[in-house]
Amino acid sequence: MAKFIVVGERIHCISPSIKKALAERNPEPVLARAKAQIEAGADYLDVNIGPGGEDAEDLMKWAVTTIQGACDDIPLALDTANTKAIEAGLSVYSRKKGKPVINSADAGDRIGNIDLAAANDAIVIALCAAGSIAADNDERMAYCQTMLERGLTLGMSENDIWFDPSFVVVKGMQEKYTEILEALKLFKDMGLNSTGGISNNSNGAPKSVRPVMDATLISMAMACGLSSAICNPCDERVMQAIKTADIFLGNTLYADSYLEI
Amino acid sequence: MAKFIVVGERIHCISPSIKKALAERNPEPVLARAKAQIEAGADYLDVNIGPGGEDAEDLMKWAVTTIQGACDDIPLALDTANTKAIEAGLSVYSRKKGKPVINSADAGDRIGNIDLAAANDAIVIALCAAGSIAADNDERMAYCQTMLERGLTLGMSENDIWFDPSFVVVKGMQEKYTEILEALKLFKDMGLNSTGGISNNSNGAPKSVRPVMDATLISMAMACGLSSAICNPCDERVMQAIKTADIFLGNTLYADSYLEI
Repeated sequence: MAKFIVVGERIHCISPSIKKALAERNPEPVLARAKAQIEAGADYLDVNIGPGGEDAEDLMKWAVTTIQGACDDIPLALDTANTKAIEAGLSVYSRKKGKPVINSADAGDRIGNIDLAAANDAIVIALCAAGSIAADNDERMAYCQTMLERGLTLGMSENDIWFDPSFVVVKGMQEKYTEILEALKLFKDMGLNSTGGISNNSNGAPKSVRPVMDATLISMAMACGLSSAICNPCDERVMQAIKTADIFLGNTLYADSYLEI
Repeated sequence: MAKFIVVGERIHCISPSIKKALAERNPEPVLARAKAQIEAGADYLDVNIGPGGEDAEDLMKWAVTTIQGACDDIPLALDTANTKAIEAGLSVYSRKKGKPVINSADAGDRIGNIDLAAANDAIVIALCAAGSIAADNDERMAYCQTMLERGLTLGMSENDIWFDPSFVVVKGMQEKYTEILEALKLFKDMGLNSTGGISNNSNGAPKSVRPVMDATLISMAMACGLSSAICNPCDERVMQAIKTADIFLGNTLYADSYLEI
């Protein structure tokens, strides 16, 4: 069994300070978040530059070289709807510590990102959706199959396609969760890796409640087979849940000090 | 989907204050724990009097009438290896708020407790073990089948047999957990109810770590289908996990205040 993979979500243009730092090419705020996440246990860092303007390609190059340069070549997930910016990021990416992750393909307009991953020996997050989220698991698994076949046909290893069932917001879509958890079991039964933006679930919930929801969901999802997540490693409760679930799943050996490791 | 059932574990003769109170038939310490657990969200209370001495029958009668009398007929789990004490407890038990739970039968020496439950229209916890814990899930599910058939043959409803996979201690038996979680999925696939002493998992772990282990395990176990647990409802982290898992499983409706309800 492999240890759960944590993709730190905190370098995201939705944060005003990160948005400003990216626009100004100011490394300090970006690197502070990068280092805090690595310190807290992130295995990869997601770099979300948004759709990006005219300079999106230059921006992604700057972000990749700045972060990897200062953080011992930490592997990154390149997160943008702008394909050219992903390609630009890939062109300067250091593979010393691991392949780049393309975030993300789907079974609709963004299916070309599977091809991009195949052409660049990259990992790709494959959102089992096409535009709107899947209506049910029949549709979700059909999208999964479509993307899996496309990747395999292009010579990818199935391990490099991380299927994302789409962790929707509980406030409004609570009833989707039984199927989302079931989808994770189906991915696992098929021997597939999975991932997702866990913190979406608690959008709009009270601040004090969000860590409880995020930690509980990640524990439940790991029990169903989730093998990685894009989440906040600086949320102590979430990281404690991940480390503990890894104990129950036999991915790490118990020691009294396991939460500090 | 039914809400998760919490059986409060804190009236247990392993606690020195409870042991003394039981011996002296002093209601106050027992009722204080009963009321605190009910306040925290317990649906049932477990009453563990140990093997009991010569007065075990009298003691169980006293405990049942004392607790139910003061706590609005809260349903109880009668927890002792002494069958005569269980019978004595059943003879004075009030069914106004729910059937009694017999804790517990197993597939070995204690299989007669299935018969006792059938004869008394009681719920029974069916530990899928015979003396020592099951070597693997083949053995665990064979024990499950044996007890299920015995109960059904005696006219019980399958809903009244709560199967317990045996939540073992992580320190020493960590490697059992992948099968324990898998067993819960098998119980669920068979349409069976399940339960277990969740807190056993963290025996011997540092005090600060135990709530993390207990809350994570119960979240994972609920994702796999666990329908009740014998646990500590006064552990806030554990109750938060249960309430939150019930949201993701669709057992309760989300509201911003759901943790306070």
